[in-house]
Amino acid sequence: MSRQRLRDLGISIGQFEPGPWNAITDIAGVRVGHFTLIRDEPTVIRTGVTAVMPRSEETIWAANAFAGIHSFNGYGEMTGMAWIDEAGILDSPILITNTHSVGVVRDAVAEFAILKGAPQRFHLPVVAETWDGWLSDIGSFAITKEHAWAAMEAARTGPVAEGNVGGGTGMIAHEFKGGIGTASRRVPIGDATYTVGALVQANYGSRRLLKCGGIPVGEVIGPDVVPSPWPVPRDQGSIIVVLATDAPLIPLQCKRLARRATTGLAWVGGYGANSSGDIFIAFATGNVVPPSQPGGPTAPVSVAMLPSESMSPLFLAAAECTEEAILNALCMAATMTGWQGRTAHALPLERLQQIMTKARAALR
Amino acid sequence: MSRQRLRDLGISIGQFEPGPWNAITDIAGVRVGHFTLIRDEPTVIRTGVTAVMPRSEETIWAANAFAGIHSFNGYGEMTGMAWIDEAGILDSPILITNTHSVGVVRDAVAEFAILKGAPQRFHLPVVAETWDGWLSDIGSFAITKEHAWAAMEAARTGPVAEGNVGGGTGMIAHEFKGGIGTASRRVPIGDATYTVGALVQANYGSRRLLKCGGIPVGEVIGPDVVPSPWPVPRDQGSIIVVLATDAPLIPLQCKRLARRATTGLAWVGGYGANSSGDIFIAFATGNVVPPSQPGGPTAPVSVAMLPSESMSPLFLAAAECTEEAILNALCMAATMTGWQGRTAHALPLERLQQIMTKARAALR
Amino acid sequence: MSRQRLRDLGISIGQFEPGPWNAITDIAGVRVGHFTLIRDEPTVIRTGVTAVMPRSEETIWAANAFAGIHSFNGYGEMTGMAWIDEAGILDSPILITNTHSVGVVRDAVAEFAILKGAPQRFHLPVVAETWDGWLSDIGSFAITKEHAWAAMEAARTGPVAEGNVGGGTGMIAHEFKGGIGTASRRVPIGDATYTVGALVQANYGSRRLLKCGGIPVGEVIGPDVVPSPWPVPRDQGSIIVVLATDAPLIPLQCKRLARRATTGLAWVGGYGANSSGDIFIAFATGNVVPPSQPGGPTAPVSVAMLPSESMSPLFLAAAECTEEAILNALCMAATMTGWQGRTAHALPLERLQQIMTKARAALR
Amino acid sequence: MSRQRLRDLGISIGQFEPGPWNAITDIAGVRVGHFTLIRDEPTVIRTGVTAVMPRSEETIWAANAFAGIHSFNGYGEMTGMAWIDEAGILDSPILITNTHSVGVVRDAVAEFAILKGAPQRFHLPVVAETWDGWLSDIGSFAITKEHAWAAMEAARTGPVAEGNVGGGTGMIAHEFKGGIGTASRRVPIGDATYTVGALVQANYGSRRLLKCGGIPVGEVIGPDVVPSPWPVPRDQGSIIVVLATDAPLIPLQCKRLARRATTGLAWVGGYGANSSGDIFIAFATGNVVPPSQPGGPTAPVSVAMLPSESMSPLFLAAAECTEEAILNALCMAATMTGWQGRTAHALPLERLQQIMTKARAALR
Repeated sequence: MSRQRLRDLGISIGQFEPGPWNAITDIAGVRVGHFTLIRDEPTVIRTGVTAVMPRSEETIWAANAFAGIHSFNGYGEMTGMAWIDEAGILDSPILITNTHSVGVVRDAVAEFAILKGAPQRFHLPVVAETWDGWLSDIGSFAITKEHAWAAMEAARTGPVAEGNVGGGTGMIAHEFKGGIGTASRRVPIGDATYTVGALVQANYGSRRLLKCGGIPVGEVIGPDVVPSPWPVPRDQGSIIVVLATDAPLIPLQCKRLARRATTGLAWVGGYGANSSGDIFIAFATGNVVPPSQPGGPTAPVSVAMLPSESMSPLFLAAAECTEEAILNALCMAATMTGWQGRTAHALPLERLQQIMTKARAALR
Repeated sequence: MSRQRLRDLGISIGQFEPGPWNAITDIAGVRVGHFTLIRDEPTVIRTGVTAVMPRSEETIWAANAFAGIHSFNGYGEMTGMAWIDEAGILDSPILITNTHSVGVVRDAVAEFAILKGAPQRFHLPVVAETWDGWLSDIGSFAITKEHAWAAMEAARTGPVAEGNVGGGTGMIAHEFKGGIGTASRRVPIGDATYTVGALVQANYGSRRLLKCGGIPVGEVIGPDVVPSPWPVPRDQGSIIVVLATDAPLIPLQCKRLARRATTGLAWVGGYGANSSGDIFIAFATGNVVPPSQPGGPTAPVSVAMLPSESMSPLFLAAAECTEEAILNALCMAATMTGWQGRTAHALPLERLQQIMTKARAALR
Repeated sequence: MSRQRLRDLGISIGQFEPGPWNAITDIAGVRVGHFTLIRDEPTVIRTGVTAVMPRSEETIWAANAFAGIHSFNGYGEMTGMAWIDEAGILDSPILITNTHSVGVVRDAVAEFAILKGAPQRFHLPVVAETWDGWLSDIGSFAITKEHAWAAMEAARTGPVAEGNVGGGTGMIAHEFKGGIGTASRRVPIGDATYTVGALVQANYGSRRLLKCGGIPVGEVIGPDVVPSPWPVPRDQGSIIVVLATDAPLIPLQCKRLARRATTGLAWVGGYGANSSGDIFIAFATGNVVPPSQPGGPTAPVSVAMLPSESMSPLFLAAAECTEEAILNALCMAATMTGWQGRTAHALPLERLQQIMTKARAALR
Repeated sequence: MSRQRLRDLGISIGQFEPGPWNAITDIAGVRVGHFTLIRDEPTVIRTGVTAVMPRSEETIWAANAFAGIHSFNGYGEMTGMAWIDEAGILDSPILITNTHSVGVVRDAVAEFAILKGAPQRFHLPVVAETWDGWLSDIGSFAITKEHAWAAMEAARTGPVAEGNVGGGTGMIAHEFKGGIGTASRRVPIGDATYTVGALVQANYGSRRLLKCGGIPVGEVIGPDVVPSPWPVPRDQGSIIVVLATDAPLIPLQCKRLARRATTGLAWVGGYGANSSGDIFIAFATGNVVPPSQPGGPTAPVSVAMLPSESMSPLFLAAAECTEEAILNALCMAATMTGWQGRTAHALPLERLQQIMTKARAALR
């Protein structure tokens, strides 16, 4: 059975409907690009870079967005956290790569901004990571600045490649092959409909805790069906969640939204094991924020804000699309053999379908 | 069918085994007391106070404990947060009551400490709340300092009363009658076994999101089985989670533990709706901390600390016992009629059993 | 020499000009009220309550304001922190009292709101404290809800009583008599002029660190001029700082402003000693925020926001008016004798004038 | 007059005595190394890297230390924040460079750790920055991984080079030439004496706010004495403060210590202007923490902890040595001409001496 997204397997989860592409790109202007590096010489590399570009025609450098970060378990890195925590302002694309390439990608984003004529003379790029050193020779520091640029240049709206692509290339989740996944939800609030989207780089978790729509599928798919990558099951690794919305949120509201990735993660079976870098960022495109720089505007600007009471459905939607994005990563990632001949097996989709069908019948 | 705890219904959830009482009192020295106030004259009151006393023979005032707080959604109150965030030191019992009685209970704890000969001349009591104004005339400010004292004086080790008792008396959860619940887990780490326990005051959530061991039981128990208290379903209310452990944790480790209540809450179906005060505190009895006061000791003291890598099983246990404590609250809380003749119906236990039996059979 | 404010002594500090009253009431709509409790029977009480009412005609309950909190050293209490940290919304007056009366004042504010017809059914009042147990029999819990109501009812715009009034009645600062102080600054930004005001309850610090406009006056005014209250100098006690501005800030900007109270405090000589509860709140009246409640508005509202680059002068002004508010508290607080016959001596104003005159001449 | 440290000018500030070198290297085991890059071809570069190595013979990778971070104003970068915020564990050297070289230095530290045989397979290096783009062609990305390695290899105990060295090479502070500075304090607590040391990379502030021991020297040294680098005075730039102590602190105590850099910064005249990246890290060498890694130790370890009440003198010492480290940076940094022929003038030391002598005489 070829790799398919969760809904293409006939499995729908959550209260809200997805957007047209069921992807973070359903938020107008948001673009995603991948650079995937798979090679066996001179050493085995299974890695890459994924770029989430928050704005379309206007660049994020001239038209900043509000954003917020939540670190559920901070054994990981997301550069640029200090300014987002301070001011709630995102003035950078968001890139995700492997742990030991965060630096090269970070400086590459600064240089890219300068090359693209960003008005700032000062850049604090947002770059996050998870660790792919089981399938890839991470100690060879294979990613270059050109790779980061390629991911940003490749960014497009529309459907998003998932699974073994970009930063997700060498990742492992719930003892299956992991990687990049995405999903979205359309949320009616009063007379408006907003979209919330998630993109994850999933590289965490143990099989026995894996759930799909609550159903404990990981307990059922035991190690005899497909083997775990590890002789002893372990809760290791990390997950980065990028949430986007077109709802007009202010910074603390973005931070609240980011925190709900915890809920979606829990629904799939992640609880923030000690060595997990579970860091979540949410940005809102609904307001254009002038760049912070000397000589910039000093007079007040007008921003739109959803009342607090309208946040609840957005929170639920953020949890739902985080949940589905992780499951999409698992469903779309194919079995991969990498460094030192190690193999991470894909989630068996037919088995997943069978379990879900049976469980849902029992609940009818 | 009389109210029974989840396990007494034959439903076991989680990887770890509970302690002897499956309660927060399984942590040596931790005691729980309730004061329940149910009266119809001069106005209808369904409220109370629950006290978690962190130490037994030695009082918490002379033998402080390490602690940490996580506010998952801060539309609520927990006094004493500033010092616990600052220093990670708990030097107070932890009391839970209704929203508008936090103040009287807080000052009552300070006076109680003075009466009991606490060495400090300065008290920052820890008192949290959820809102019971649907079943109880909260505007009558019925709780007195004597009620708070009675809850503390009643504190005992051993089994803990659950459901419509103490601070949980008038609470509603997942559109069923809610209240107080507790659970515990025994966690083997290396050569040692530690216990983690949770006590919750559950007053949040919508029915359609309710899950038991992942199984979406709330979707199945529709409003025709037992009615919702509200004509339009809503995600309102709050949950306070108190976690205790005998593992030797330092303050940031307690904070990390507290954050995992988010995971357990998510497993039952809570996502921190906007108007929810979802505030979690974790304390660790494994170290005795000298009180912070002028003239106190100045030389270093020795404290024990679990290595970071040992935290993962504690995290999972904290999520598990939060999950089960909430479900115990729902299972133990009986239908209640209160202010203005309103009725909150209990979770139908036989229906729950049937659903779980069927679902588990399908997964076998 | 009678007690006078710093500027009335001919001592001006800072870059910006104060507003008409050099008080937090220079922000339109902000009102301050005190209730002062001084009695010798049945026990010696030197305490009170100070209320800062953030709005005038419209009440704060119907017209919430944005706000932010910074805890520089959290050995203290400010109720209501969780919601302000979560959403940046202030929907309560701000009251300050003694440590052991925070509770009674907190519940009193909730009841007051109900009596005044607040639209919310749920209140999280903001009440802070410092400890006056050296001059006052704090263990007698003398403050009642009527005292809190009296402080709120007494709130007025215009000049603010300082020194031994309201919550500041029994306080001690830098080993002199302390109490309530206030100050303001007018800040031109672009075409507009904003006002920043501070009100402090000062109860912290050691004499040798006291500075005025940087000049180390505390080193010069030794214990032979006027005695310290304590045989051994100690850095004990706390300070609450309330900052207000009419600049249109969003929540994180308020939090940033609150953090600058640290700078003003440092300029006077406070460094957050261990047992100090140094908690700062800043609110901005420039936006009216709809109350968060079920059934409230769901459509986006428009809020004004200063660009980040305009924050610097507000930050400096916040530091300046915190500095001057503390010095005003010291200058206006008269010598007081209290519990157990203890006396806290006032800062000697003539000596202060002499030192400042001499120092400034030397720098010319 | 050649550049001299503050004390060599006869100016002593603070209550505590410095250690033998009056430097962060007074903490046993702490080593500092610089790599300075000054060249005019092919473009004008005035930049570098400074490394603070927290341990001597044992490396920091095998013998982690407790640490804490405070972001006073987060318009800056310090990688590795998430793990230190999470667990309070420092398992990396601390490097400081220019803004756009944070990435290359970060990955270089990871590679250096691997080369040195660090037990971890996963690195989250701590690298911070300030912006030197006024004197140096920052857009040329001149720093390489070999430069970062050179700074770490150069690390020594003993006296520390200050001023225009390492990461501080191209920095500007209070409109004078800035750079690297250091200082230390010896703090008697009970029977023990602990040392606190600071190292700063100072690149912030306006001249008119500059103070020395409280004396407003910046107001007196007007632009006619030596010109400002900028036609219009501005509060721009950033400061990184690294605090070290041999006192046995636990993580939250380190965070509290870090926060006191705010006080020392305020004493010199910094208030965290909007565009300032004022990020502070404190680490404590008094406990050896086992590395967090799969297969590591699981049994509790014993750590020493100062009682809270012993923190106050450490807090004051942290403020004092931050203050003196900044002043040492200004005193030691010589006039520099850089990119586009721009010149940043040194603080005039004779003028500083004169002002301080006169002011102190007036206060006697």
